Formats: sequence, C-alpha cells, structure tokens
Amino acid sequence: MPGNSFGRIFRITTFGESHGTGIGVVIDGVPPGVALSAADIQQELDRRRPGQSTITTERNERDRVEILSGIIDGKTTGAPVALYIKNENMRTDDYEALKELYRPGHADYTYDMKYGIRDWRGGGRASGRETAARVAGGAVAKKLLRESGIEVIGYTLEIGGVRAERIKYDEIERNPVRSPDPGKVNEMVKRIKEVKAGGDSIGGIVEVVVTGVPPGLGEPVFDKLDALLAHAIMSVGAVKGVEIGRGFQSANMKGSEFNDQFEIRDGRIRTRTNNAGGILGGISTGEDIVLRAAIRPPASISIRQKTVDRKGEERDIEVYGRHDPCIVPRAVPVIEAMVSIVIIDCLLLQSAYQNWVKNRRSPL
Amino acid sequence: MPGNSFGRIFRITTFGESHGTGIGVVIDGVPPGVALSAADIQQELDRRRPGQSTITTERNERDRVEILSGIIDGKTTGAPVALYIKNENMRTDDYEALKELYRPGHADYTYDMKYGIRDWRGGGRASGRETAARVAGGAVAKKLLRESGIEVIGYTLEIGGVRAERIKYDEIERNPVRSPDPGKVNEMVKRIKEVKAGGDSIGGIVEVVVTGVPPGLGEPVFDKLDALLAHAIMSVGAVKGVEIGRGFQSANMKGSEFNDQFEIRDGRIRTRTNNAGGILGGISTGEDIVLRAAIRPPASISIRQKTVDRKGEERDIEVYGRHDPCIVPRAVPVIEAMVSIVIIDCLLLQSAYQNWVKNRRSPL
Amino acid sequence: MPGNSFGRIFRITTFGESHGTGIGVVIDGVPPGVALSAADIQQELDRRRPGQSTITTERNERDRVEILSGIIDGKTTGAPVALYIKNENMRTDDYEALKELYRPGHADYTYDMKYGIRDWRGGGRASGRETAARVAGGAVAKKLLRESGIEVIGYTLEIGGVRAERIKYDEIERNPVRSPDPGKVNEMVKRIKEVKAGGDSIGGIVEVVVTGVPPGLGEPVFDKLDALLAHAIMSVGAVKGVEIGRGFQSANMKGSEFNDQFEIRDGRIRTRTNNAGGILGGISTGEDIVLRAAIRPPASISIRQKTVDRKGEERDIEVYGRHDPCIVPRAVPVIEAMVSIVIIDCLLLQSAYQNWVKNRRSPL
Amino acid sequence: MPGNSFGRIFRITTFGESHGTGIGVVIDGVPPGVALSAADIQQELDRRRPGQSTITTERNERDRVEILSGIIDGKTTGAPVALYIKNENMRTDDYEALKELYRPGHADYTYDMKYGIRDWRGGGRASGRETAARVAGGAVAKKLLRESGIEVIGYTLEIGGVRAERIKYDEIERNPVRSPDPGKVNEMVKRIKEVKAGGDSIGGIVEVVVTGVPPGLGEPVFDKLDALLAHAIMSVGAVKGVEIGRGFQSANMKGSEFNDQFEIRDGRIRTRTNNAGGILGGISTGEDIVLRAAIRPPASISIRQKTVDRKGEERDIEVYGRHDPCIVPRAVPVIEAMVSIVIIDCLLLQSAYQNWVKNRRSPL
Repeated sequence: MPGNSFGRIFRITTFGESHGTGIGVVIDGVPPGVALSAADIQQELDRRRPGQSTITTERNERDRVEILSGIIDGKTTGAPVALYIKNENMRTDDYEALKELYRPGHADYTYDMKYGIRDWRGGGRASGRETAARVAGGAVAKKLLRESGIEVIGYTLEIGGVRAERIKYDEIERNPVRSPDPGKVNEMVKRIKEVKAGGDSIGGIVEVVVTGVPPGLGEPVFDKLDALLAHAIMSVGAVKGVEIGRGFQSANMKGSEFNDQFEIRDGRIRTRTNNAGGILGGISTGEDIVLRAAIRPPASISIRQKTVDRKGEERDIEVYGRHDPCIVPRAVPVIEAMVSIVIIDCLLLQSAYQNWVKNRRSPL
Repeated sequence: MPGNSFGRIFRITTFGESHGTGIGVVIDGVPPGVALSAADIQQELDRRRPGQSTITTERNERDRVEILSGIIDGKTTGAPVALYIKNENMRTDDYEALKELYRPGHADYTYDMKYGIRDWRGGGRASGRETAARVAGGAVAKKLLRESGIEVIGYTLEIGGVRAERIKYDEIERNPVRSPDPGKVNEMVKRIKEVKAGGDSIGGIVEVVVTGVPPGLGEPVFDKLDALLAHAIMSVGAVKGVEIGRGFQSANMKGSEFNDQFEIRDGRIRTRTNNAGGILGGISTGEDIVLRAAIRPPASISIRQKTVDRKGEERDIEVYGRHDPCIVPRAVPVIEAMVSIVIIDCLLLQSAYQNWVKNRRSPL
Repeated sequence: MPGNSFGRIFRITTFGESHGTGIGVVIDGVPPGVALSAADIQQELDRRRPGQSTITTERNERDRVEILSGIIDGKTTGAPVALYIKNENMRTDDYEALKELYRPGHADYTYDMKYGIRDWRGGGRASGRETAARVAGGAVAKKLLRESGIEVIGYTLEIGGVRAERIKYDEIERNPVRSPDPGKVNEMVKRIKEVKAGGDSIGGIVEVVVTGVPPGLGEPVFDKLDALLAHAIMSVGAVKGVEIGRGFQSANMKGSEFNDQFEIRDGRIRTRTNNAGGILGGISTGEDIVLRAAIRPPASISIRQKTVDRKGEERDIEVYGRHDPCIVPRAVPVIEAMVSIVIIDCLLLQSAYQNWVKNRRSPL
Repeated sequence: MPGNSFGRIFRITTFGESHGTGIGVVIDGVPPGVALSAADIQQELDRRRPGQSTITTERNERDRVEILSGIIDGKTTGAPVALYIKNENMRTDDYEALKELYRPGHADYTYDMKYGIRDWRGGGRASGRETAARVAGGAVAKKLLRESGIEVIGYTLEIGGVRAERIKYDEIERNPVRSPDPGKVNEMVKRIKEVKAGGDSIGGIVEVVVTGVPPGLGEPVFDKLDALLAHAIMSVGAVKGVEIGRGFQSANMKGSEFNDQFEIRDGRIRTRTNNAGGILGGISTGEDIVLRAAIRPPASISIRQKTVDRKGEERDIEVYGRHDPCIVPRAVPVIEAMVSIVIIDCLLLQSAYQNWVKNRRSPL
C-alpha cells in the first residue's frame, strides 16, 4: 500500500535507489512450471539500459540481472521470483553540488516535503533507474503472455513533433529511436541532437499495441482494463498523459464516427474499426489493444535555471552530468513492461472464474 | 479485487444495476466525528442526475439518497457509511428489443464474453447509472476535503471542438453545459442540439483543478498521485484519455520550456509556472493540481448501425430510448468525485506517517 | 483496508449497526451464472437469528433478507451481490441508561478511545448483530462450495465444560444447542439454564469440519489456509482462540505421534491419521479440514459490576435487556460462514493458476 | 495476494528458498528518518539462527544480513528497506534421497498438488528457513515500536508438558530454552534431550506479552487486532493454535468471571483483570496484550515412517539430517516478529485518522 507494489494476482514489488547497492524486484504470483532464465530478462533490460547509442546518456551500465529465487531446474516453482541488478558506473560526486538544491522538474522538493529526508544521490528512489526493476518484472510477464499467444509491441510514435506515419513492427528495433517508420528515423535523431547541442531536452509519444488478447479481460467499474493500464503507465515518472484508442481525438467525434460496428470476420465476432482501442466497458473485445503515452522532456538540462535550496534561499542551478536528451526510445520497453504486467494480471484473474464461465460463453 | 471497490484507506465499494432495485455505495474509512447529512450528498447527485435541462436525457430520475449506516446524531462514527439510491422511472421495455443484439460502442458483447450471462436491462452494471454511486461516495470525500481547505473544481473545457477560453469558476454552475466561459455557452449548446437533431452524439473534454492541496501527497513509484488519478478517471466509462498539467502537449516541449522553476512567493516555495500540473515525481507540489479527461461521444445513437446478435448473426440496429446526446456536462461531477476520492485517500495515508515526518519537514 | 471487508477474489464488505436502519453486505467476486435466491440466504440467517428457542435471547428478529443487486432471472451475473436486512424489534431505550457507561467486556471503551465518538445504541457496529451480514455473505459462499462438492459442517463441541463425545452430523440441527451428540443435549441445556437463572453467562467451543476440499488450496507463507481461517474466525467478536487439527494438544505430542503418515487409500493418496487437520505447510491435503473456536461467555450479564463512565468516574453497572446466556449455538452458523468464505476465496484463487498447473499435477 | 506479503501500511514481502542463493525481505511503509543499522536486525536474527546451543540443530548458519536499500546516512528515507541473507552451510545432498518421497508432516505432497512442481532442496520455500526473513522484517518493526514506547516480549511457556510457572522477563535470554522461569530450564532441556535421543521431536507453547500499546489500535469487524494477530501467528509453519487472553479457558468461564471490570488506576482507565488479553471488540484497551501459540513437534524425525512417493507407490522413509528436536525456543523471535509487524501496522493506520480523532478523545 505504500506504493512500491503493483498488480493483484501477478504482483511486483520493487526496491533500490539510483546510487545505492542495486535495484530489485520481487514478483509474486508467477505461475509454476514456466521455463525462465536470466537471458529472458536480460534481453529486455538491454533494451532499456543506458549507453545503447549516441543519442542516449553516456552512462554505461551493464545492468546484469541475477535471479535470487523462485526457480528450480530452469523452471518457476510458484514461489516469488526475486531479481537483482547491482549498480555500477555511479558518479555520486556529480550530485554532491546539488545536494542542497531543488532541481526544477525533479522530485527533490516533493520528496523533502513528503519525508523530511531525501536520498540526494542521483535522485535515489525517484530516479529513472527505478524503471529497470519494472522492465525486469515485465520480462517475466511477457514470457507468460507469449505462452498464451499475446504480444506487446511498443514504439516511438513521435519525438518533438516528428511523427511516424507508417507502422512497421520489424523496423522498431533496427534504429536507435525505436521508430516504426524507417523514413522518420533521421529526422527524429536530428531533433534529439539539436536539443542536446543546446543543453536542452525534448519529449515525445510512445504507442503500444497488444495483439492476441482474448475478449473478457478487465473488471467492470473501477478496475477496467483501461483504468489499470492508465494507472500502470502514468506511474512511469516521465508520463504526463495516457490515451486508449482514439483518445483525445474522440472528444471531437460523433457517436456515428466513433462507435465500432460489429461484423463476422475470420469466423468470429470482430469490429469493423477499432476506435475504442480494443476495450469496451473496461473489458477487452479481442481486437488489438492500442494506447499512447505522452513523455515529457527530461528534467535534467544544463541550461541555467532558477530554483530554491533546502534553506529556502533562491538560487541558480545548472545540472551537469550524463543525462538523456530524450528518454522516449528507452521508455518504450518500460511502457511495454507495465502493459505486460497489467495484461497477465487480468488474464490470471479472469482464469479464476473460468470454470463458472466457460460453458456459457461465446456465440460462435 | 474483482473491481467494485476503489481506494485504500478511504475506500468505496459500489453495487447495483441500471434497471434493478437501486444503486448503492459503501464508504469505508470515513473519519469519525464529521457532520454529514443526506443533503450534503443530494447536492452532488443533483448535479449528475438526468433531466436537468433540455440538452440532457429526458429521463427524470430524482435520485434521492438514503443513508443506511455510519451516522449518529448527524455525525460519522468511523463505521462504514452506506448510501442507497432507489431506481425510478425505468423503462425496461425499451431494452427488450435489444436483448439479443450487441449494441456498438456498448459493453454488451464484452460482458457476454466475460461472464457468459448479461443483465440486458439498460446495460445493467455497465450503465452510466453506476456513476451515481461514485458521485455519492465522492460527496463524502468532498466534505472531508473542504474541512481540510481543499476544493475540487470541474468544468467543461470543450464540447465537439468548441473550447472554453476563459476560466471563471463562478460561471460553471450557471449554465447547462458547465462551461467556465460564459461566452462559449451558446456555441456549445448549439453543437449539442445539432448532433441530437441528427440522432447522433458528441464528445468533449472535462478539466479539473484542485486547490489547497498540501505538498507531499501521493506515493512514489506505482501509486504516484497522477497514477492514482489516471486510474480513477479512466475507470469512468466514457473516458478515453487522461492528462496531467501540459499532458500531451509536453511531448513537443523542451525541458527548458517544461520545467517549472522554483521561487519564493507568498512566503513559501512555489513554482513560477505549473506545467507539471501540481505533481512532481508523483507527489503533490502544493500548486494547483490540473488535469483533463477526454470524453467520447455516447454510444447510444438512433442512426442505423451494423452489428451482430448473440447467435452470431449479422444484424442492423437502431438504439431508440432516452439518451444523452453529450454526456460531458453530467460527467463533470463524476470526474470531480473520483478526483476527490483519490485526494482524501492520499491525505489520510500521508497522515499515517506524520508523527515521523513533521519535525523534519519544510525549510520555511 | 479500514476493516469492513474480507476476502481477496471472493470479497465481502459489510455495513450497518445494531439499532440503525439495517445491516448489509456487498459480495464482490461472485462467479456468474449461479442460481441464487433469497431463500438460499434466508435459510442460513434463520439458523443465526435470535428467538430460535428458549435458551437464546427473547429478541424476536425475523431478519428477512432482500437481494439488492447482482441477479437476473434467478442467476448471478458476475456483478456484486448486495444483501440487506432491515432492523426490527429494536428497543433503543434499553441502552439510554448505559449511554455514558463503559460496559465491562464490551467495546464501549475501546470504540470511544479509537474514534472519540460512539454509537451507543445496542453497541452499534460492535454488536453481535453485525454477524448477520457475515452469515448472509457466507450463504452465498456455501452455495458455490456445494456446487464444487464441498460441505462446511459446524456444531457445538462444548458448552461450559460439557463436551460432545460422539459426532453425528444428522443430529446437529435437531436440538437447540447444535450438539452433534444427542446424549449431551440435556446436560448442555441445563448448564445454560443454570447460568441464565443466576443472571450470568457461559462460553463454549465450536468445531467445524470441511469435507470435499481438494488438495492445493491456500497460499504458502503469509496466506496459508490455516492463517486465513484463523483471521476469519478470530474476527468474530466472541472468539478468543482458534486451533487447527490437534491444535494446543500438539504442544505435548511427539513428532512420531503427530505426523500423519501417507498411504494409498480409495485409489488416492491419503493420510492414515489427520492430526494436521487437513492442512500441511498452509495448503490443503485433501483430508477433512478440522478446526475449533473458543467462544467466551457473553459480556452482557445482569450481575452488578464495577465500571467507569465517559467522564472518568467509577460507577456500578447492571446490564439488563434481552441477551443470550450462551452464544455458542448461534455462533455455529457464523463460524461456518467465515470458513466458507475463506474456502471459496482460496478455491477461486487456485483456479487462476490451473491452466499452468493441471498438466503437471498428481501422481495418480 | 499470492501470499508472500503481509501487512497493509507497514508491509513485508519475502522471497527465497532454503537451499537457493538466499532469503530476503522487502519492507514497504517504513517511516522516514528512523536510525536503522544492520546491527539492529542482526541482533534479532542471532536469536533465531540455528546452531545457538546443544539443543538446536547443529546446522551452523551465520545468517549475516545485508541492507540493500532504503537507508541514507544511517537513516530510513521512506523508501522500501530490502534486506538479504545469503544461504551458507547447505547440504543439498541430504535431500537427494528424499527427492521423490513425500515426507510425513512436511509440505512436500501439498506443494506438489498445488504447483505440480516442487523445490525439493530442504523444503524450498516451505522450509522453516523462510522465517529468517520474517525476523529481519520484524526487527525493523520492533525498532519503530520501541521509539513509540512499545515492547514485544516472547518466551517459552511450555515444552512437552513442562510449563513455566513464574514469568521473569530478565531470565528469558539467559537460558537456551527461553524459559521465563529459571526453575524449569533443566526440566525443559531434559525433555528435549530425551526425545532427541529417541530420534523424535516435541512441541510446546510460546507466549507473547506486548506492553505500552495505546488504546485504539485494531479495526472493527474483520481486521480486529486479535484477528490480525491470529493471521500473523498462524502463518508461521509450526503453529497449530492461537489464543488471546484466557483463550480456550474462557470456554468454561462465566461472564461474571471473564469480564474485566473497569476502574481508575494510575490516573487512567484500567481493567482490574486482563482476561481479554488487552483487546475488546478487536481494539486494544491499553492493557498488556497477551497471547499464546501452540507449536507442533518438528516433522523431521529419524524414526521410520510410512509414506508414498511421487509415482504413487507406498514406501518407508527415515529423515536423517540436522534437525531441531524442538523448535519452540527458536520460534520465540519469529512469533515476536509477526506480532511486532501487526502492532506497528495498526499504529500507523490509526495515525491516519488522528487529526480527526484527537480532539474528541479520552475522558481523562
């Protein structure tokens, strides 16, 4: 309840700070008998880790994951799977000078107000480094989803106004910005380099598509599938907005345009369009789930800003160090991880009732 | 866990269907000794109820609330407060003809897939009527917040592309569309009447501002204040997007534009701008909390649409009955209610630690 | 979280006070498509209601249950089932005189310390009347268990030192003390009448046996099946002790006596004895679950006692009114209800993983 | 929800197996600014660790705790505190021979039924070693309680029928059986040595007293303080019964004997006796909380027993290895830990409402 856990049946609990000994996650509710290796998790961590390319931070953390529990003979046992990533390549000195200052756009001030004490070393718990534990947990979720025929695919839809126009899943991992549109890669990279040159940073939009989701996931009323997804995604530090299907566009649509009409296609009930983004009344329709997250520009910029220190004195600040000018490409696996955790959690919960449901379900 | 409860310390559980005997809410965690009357709740329900004006549905439900428990001598006792609203003015016959059809844009199909059985009378649990229980619960939250100096103010920012330009709180309740800009009322009303005349419906945007929130609310990582708000708001059936502060706009902003710089103002630490919408690192800053919800057009339209029936046959459908052409004005108190519940819940949770925090906090 | 809900997937939330308008329960997580009528619930409530016989309180409450939601055409829909029981036959005047006094053995003092305000009318929320909502919720759990071949059988093992020696399930409901041993009925009744004549009260022991539980229910570590049962049963006001299988006796047993050895019997793996009470490592073995609850004597006695009033003055008190001299027979359906809720909750949770488990399970 | 977490506001999540890399606990909800060192935790772990004396197992695990997160400059930050204990001195070979056998009294069979797979190395997650993580978490709870003037004192009340008659707190840690009665130490030790000589094991009773608890802790109805304590304690593997105050004795008491009458003493409201064990209506009275746990004899005995193997064949089994003949003395810190976690959790939750309560409370 104090906020470091997420999920109901499939539930992750994370710990660790940016400049402490390491970052970890305990995953409770992992079904038994599933083949799981460090490599399954490492592969996702490598997509998030810093130092991947010239457009990300130069910090070079290997982020090697270690499995601490929950596995025997390469398979899950039903016991909690604990994963741990040691911190490396820290430069705590970078933060000494900022110890007494509230960095604009960061959580320094709010943590101090909340707790009266603050881990100033790289933002401590408020650091983006915390998301490594999410990605580790999400990798396990992804593995389970794949066993169930469900894929979670994320990509950079937009960086600083440059928007992908074609969505080609195969292209995503082939370019440093994770653009699904190969024709926009250069423009996106250029945009990032521009702001970086000016000591500044830039935002963007991540889009995620989930394929293979069966109808029936999500709970009505407060735990609607879209509500859980919104919670999961908005809990990622850099996210300032979440939308499902047509999202904010739907505010200026008519019902006759927005409603997805039903038809029989491929031998089953389908909708002709997917404006709803695969969710009706909070429950999956069986169409692709489609959502977007607005990512704000990183707060750490080397341009001089006004701020206040812990004593309440007004001060100037310049935040040097090794920071990402644009976090969007590295946010893609983080958002995917959160989406994966929500979907497997809903799938397990729905399974709980399946004995009672299965004989009554489905017209086709 | 099956989705009909929301909140942690201040927790609501709702029940009831559109065309059953009534709708109710049990509120657990209401602090003791607070003056609370049916009138406090009725006042909010009246803002949500149908039949308020010519631009809402003609259904005329009085929605009289009854307090079933938790009060003695006009004050809360710490026991759960149960509220109940009997259903009236139902026309179940309107739905008989649709019993076997999956209405496009509604949850008919997904409920059938989830449960294998469905309360077809007016949408049952998936009806917008369910939000009356949220408003009743939110009214109690609002009362508690007011005792703590916190106000939650919602209004219609946009209907079908017509956007309020000036925000005057006093105007909101003086016009049928809950526009804070008196100069846009006629245009908004006209837009609604147009789509209604065509048997169609239209969407819009609700904005909410919360004033008086102390710094320190919200939990880091998964239960960030914005994550809880996104969950709460996205759980309202008609919402397709949620954004905080500059939201999706921030995707095309630079860090130097987006970061809210700190200063001393009014004798305390303030930010010069409020692009973050009053939340940093998931924790309230003490600035106004500002958020927006995208409301899709109502699904019930009287234009002919394609659909499928429960036997899997393709069919045509026209949904007659008494429906709102635009739900935005009535959604305002619903979104306010959900925001209020999140804020009081966070406030109570933060209080749990205050003995340990208070002597260490705040530079000023 | 503030304590008026219990269960995880099958979850009840109760409300209402002894002398308010009524008592209710919202049951979330009821599987869909299950036939359920008011009669199913009434039958259990009738076993708990006051005025059943000469040895219980003379208060004559009919406790008629009303189903407020969650049912269509006699079947559950997956939506929350809300049940409501109006209060009748209240004599609030009986309590006026005690308004300022802390009754020994009651929660008057502790509620005042906790909340600073108290519903003095018949104990308010702390009244045994609260258990009617548990029995109503438990009746739904029982119905579901029966569909799964599981029976929950409770009886009076002991009253004031008089202990049943033979356990004949058929006899339980045939006598007013719910003794499974017809040879002990008269002696138990006599014991109750004796203490009643003296204005006093007496305690006893309830035993519950659950048959038909499949192996595998309960979660390791903190949510062991026995831990959940202990929580559920100890939450009943009058219970001061809970034991599983040989319970406190096991403190003076050797491992060679206590261990239940395995064998093949009836074509499956069984234990030769059942000292563990059907639970090993917190997980059901498939043997009968056997547990006992110690029930203290009712606190309301008409013998003069020393106490203190709300102003902190020492006073004498005599509690007149219509009270049970022994609550044990009426506690039987309450304990059964709590056990039923735990078992169905564990069964549903275990079902969540069954797709992953079923192909790997069981040697026979 | 899958059972490896406990607590609400102060919440522990444990992981790790007997013969895996280690055992850990993540503690969420630790208040900020509290001095906390590895020594604080080590001290409690040393009370639980094997190899303390001749009457415990000869396994010699040092159980060195490492703090992985949540601390800066020796103080808690409000972030989760993760603690880790590497496994040492394992002899996995001891278990190879038992890999296919279901050990009587152990969870081998039930884990296999639940998960279809089992970590056979020393019982895996079902091993008593899991309790090291509880003790580590409990040590943090104890530290917080001590800051609030609350002490949790556990001791061996009984071993194999030998019962302490005098309770002298100072004596507890001075003898290997943790007897509070120095006159019974030799007899208890003798009883253990006898059963050990026969390759057998023996049970006993742990009693815990909590002093300094303010009135008002615990939530009415389902989360009564005694219900939470029963849950916590019964979740310890070896516990088969829990009682509060007079417990099972109260079943044969009259109301006039059992009721604790109120008086003014030491300038505040007190009870003359404490048969209720410090809890009325599920809420603390301010008197000492007193409870007992029945500990069954350890399941691992070297006497030949009948069992069944994973193929469903009947077999004989003798469990050699390094096992405790009596777990009671080592169970004392485990039970204390669980009690401490419940009390701090209730204390924090009650604090959440204190702004609303404090001005209305208490006659004196």
